[in-house]
Amino acid sequence: MSNYLDNLNWRYATKKFDTTKKVSPEKLESLLDAISLSASSYGLQPYEIFVIEDKAVREKLKPAAWGQAQITDSSHVIVLAHQSTFGEELVDNYLEKVSATRNIPLKDLGGYADFMKSKLVTLPESEKASWTARQAYLALGNLLSAAADLKIDSCPMEGFDAPDVNEILGLTEKGLNAAVLVAIGHRSEEDTTQHNKKVRKPKKELITHI
Amino acid sequence: MSNYLDNLNWRYATKKFDTTKKVSPEKLESLLDAISLSASSYGLQPYEIFVIEDKAVREKLKPAAWGQAQITDSSHVIVLAHQSTFGEELVDNYLEKVSATRNIPLKDLGGYADFMKSKLVTLPESEKASWTARQAYLALGNLLSAAADLKIDSCPMEGFDAPDVNEILGLTEKGLNAAVLVAIGHRSEEDTTQHNKKVRKPKKELITHI
Repeated sequence: MSNYLDNLNWRYATKKFDTTKKVSPEKLESLLDAISLSASSYGLQPYEIFVIEDKAVREKLKPAAWGQAQITDSSHVIVLAHQSTFGEELVDNYLEKVSATRNIPLKDLGGYADFMKSKLVTLPESEKASWTARQAYLALGNLLSAAADLKIDSCPMEGFDAPDVNEILGLTEKGLNAAVLVAIGHRSEEDTTQHNKKVRKPKKELITHI
Repeated sequence: MSNYLDNLNWRYATKKFDTTKKVSPEKLESLLDAISLSASSYGLQPYEIFVIEDKAVREKLKPAAWGQAQITDSSHVIVLAHQSTFGEELVDNYLEKVSATRNIPLKDLGGYADFMKSKLVTLPESEKASWTARQAYLALGNLLSAAADLKIDSCPMEGFDAPDVNEILGLTEKGLNAAVLVAIGHRSEEDTTQHNKKVRKPKKELITHI
């Protein structure tokens, strides 16, 4: 655990990346393995992940992300895109995977399917998008910890115009919406913000024991 | 990283806890240290965390959590409660901490304060609650990874009636809403679900490289 805490203390929202340093393919795959293993409600993973290395696409994304340099200076930009909505197919697709992975006849999962559908498919549209976005943020929490473990620097970014990002990446026609961007790479020595003391609520303010 | 991935593979949503095994105070503090270090948008941490060990309170919570046994069988229940709304004080309280931690005069942070307020305080009420809930889920992702690192078992739970949980814990009058519950403890050997193969989208379905 001391390593885990050390990693959390090592990481920071990287403002200036070293443009000469790429995340190695091996580390990137490990990071993506970790993201793939994120928990999600019922295991449904109602999101997709886009890993953008292409310079031209990142140049297009940059103005949509308020001109922030991390979009083009980083090694890769990861976009967590949550489903804007969903129907019964979200549950059905998942249960097909459960059936295949665990060798359970699909018909034996019917009761579970009905339960999940009764809880999720009936949600109002606005709540569906909020729920899928929360699952993407759960994955984001795992992504940031995993990146730190791999000594990959990261900058999670909410500062972007989602409709513009959606159009550039063709997300809308896939039923997706950009939830959050994460620039990954390696910090520049010149990034003075890496030396800033972390600001967090003291535990006694954040946490109540009952 | 191999450890990190091993931890993610080790963890699962624990259905049956060993009622005789408590999370040690040392491990619990490490877990809470990790949660406290979670990233959040602008570092604002718009949530509070309740760690419930008290048996009577957990007995009260159980029916609000659809009678799920993990609420009372686990060692502790952690409630991540996001702010239902916020005003300028969210930014002001944070910047006071920045000023104190980094020894920067508060007046030098005025421009940053105005920027944050222009982005956040102007959000419609419904979006404020969604945004704070997403930050709580980011912390949840970190919590689950940190717990696995500590070999603490966990079960994140969305199956509960938030108004009931809010009333039992007195969250509403604090401007909070229960976002997610996490039962923590140690798995029972009898929990057969620990042997289930993990079901996840294959990387080629989840991830697109651009």
